[in-house]
Amino acid sequence: MNLTIQHVINHLTAKIELPANTVDQLITGAPNQPVTGVFVTFMPTQHVIEHAIQRGANLIIAHEPPFYNHHSHTDWLANDPIYETKRRLIENAGIAIYRCHDAIHRFQPDGITEGLVQALGWSSSVEHSKPEADILSFPGGMTVQLIAEHIKHSLGIEYVRLTGDPKMVCNRAAILVGFRGNGNLTIPLLQQEELDLIIAGEGFEWETPEYIRDAVQQGKQKALLMIGHAESEASGMKLLSERLATAFPEFPVHYVGEQPVFQVL
Amino acid sequence: MNLTIQHVINHLTAKIELPANTVDQLITGAPNQPVTGVFVTFMPTQHVIEHAIQRGANLIIAHEPPFYNHHSHTDWLANDPIYETKRRLIENAGIAIYRCHDAIHRFQPDGITEGLVQALGWSSSVEHSKPEADILSFPGGMTVQLIAEHIKHSLGIEYVRLTGDPKMVCNRAAILVGFRGNGNLTIPLLQQEELDLIIAGEGFEWETPEYIRDAVQQGKQKALLMIGHAESEASGMKLLSERLATAFPEFPVHYVGEQPVFQVL
Repeated sequence: MNLTIQHVINHLTAKIELPANTVDQLITGAPNQPVTGVFVTFMPTQHVIEHAIQRGANLIIAHEPPFYNHHSHTDWLANDPIYETKRRLIENAGIAIYRCHDAIHRFQPDGITEGLVQALGWSSSVEHSKPEADILSFPGGMTVQLIAEHIKHSLGIEYVRLTGDPKMVCNRAAILVGFRGNGNLTIPLLQQEELDLIIAGEGFEWETPEYIRDAVQQGKQKALLMIGHAESEASGMKLLSERLATAFPEFPVHYVGEQPVFQVL
Repeated sequence: MNLTIQHVINHLTAKIELPANTVDQLITGAPNQPVTGVFVTFMPTQHVIEHAIQRGANLIIAHEPPFYNHHSHTDWLANDPIYETKRRLIENAGIAIYRCHDAIHRFQPDGITEGLVQALGWSSSVEHSKPEADILSFPGGMTVQLIAEHIKHSLGIEYVRLTGDPKMVCNRAAILVGFRGNGNLTIPLLQQEELDLIIAGEGFEWETPEYIRDAVQQGKQKALLMIGHAESEASGMKLLSERLATAFPEFPVHYVGEQPVFQVL
């Protein structure tokens, strides 16, 4: 039996109740296409698509959208040469792109958070999991500097951004992936969970960082490490690729990463 | 005659049509309070408020809100100790905080963009101004690396983030302050204005940076420098302080800056 893209989508969304306005969808390609191979990635960049074509994979499962906006609208991009070149590449090669964003965040536990915590080797430090964050306990404490170095080393990234004192000793932290770094999530967590550190992917610069700055200026022991959106979520997609490879031995499944989108100058 | 806070607000908003849902408001204090002195700042942090109290200034004009969310809601912060400590400090000292955000962006030209371009010494490089951006022309070209070093030196900042090749030669750039770094603004500009470089404050990591990455992977000459939200807007508030000092010789007006909220580790 030829497994189709719809089979893979059914597998990804089994037992998941997607929100009404979900961004998860087959952005290019057709559900009845037989799958020749799967690339799993955080971001379906030009290079990831070219690589999939070279390797004969016709389904890319991506956490983020290919066309630079969360809801994958494309009307506003008509006649944009970069969009058109990418779109033509995808269509000429018959590449299906399926966005797996809301579903993996609704795995029990959240599949993106789980992948990050595994990549950091911190599974045994998870005190409990909340829908938006894992709460980590470091008995005996660890300096923020050491935590930052550990994150950089574990994820192979060049830099993280810190608000607060690198010498502060952290005992309890929350880790929030992707765009969960905003104050509406982090500030209540800091108080309810008695945290001293937030580790987040991305968030508005005028919310959590400024709250942490005020806390430090008030003499309180709080800090924030902002590690980057992709840097916080790619490991979860890598974990998904391993699970899909086990679930679908009928075709090859590979994880494909990218370089960090920013370098610091 | 005692000049009141309302006099200053009237001055700031003269000839400005604020949007219906404007965030500009007197967040603390009363409009009929006589002004003893003004601090102008980007972010009214704990330290900025303490400093204002020490100096006898009872009006802080800030571009961003004191309480970690764009619309200055505070219900969600009830019982938060960092919020409460800050709020108590403000109320006990009778400090008025006026948010000047939408008004200064509606000055002709945009007062925040104007301040940044002046701080960079690039006023004569502005080819034309649009509501959302100034379009800069560098005849003969300048490498992105050199532009980045110039920005860091001019603004006194430690780092900027780059997507693209630092050796690319830039001839035409757009400069977008604050949270104008998203794809809906930058991507049409890049095409319509035939730009090779975007210089922006802050924006979603999955929009403009990923578009620029795709462009580079397609062999096109595009780059992005993300310089930070505060880093892109503080100069505009400094320019405002100079104008207010001229307009109101009756009381002292000072600009007060802050350290960058992030350090890179």
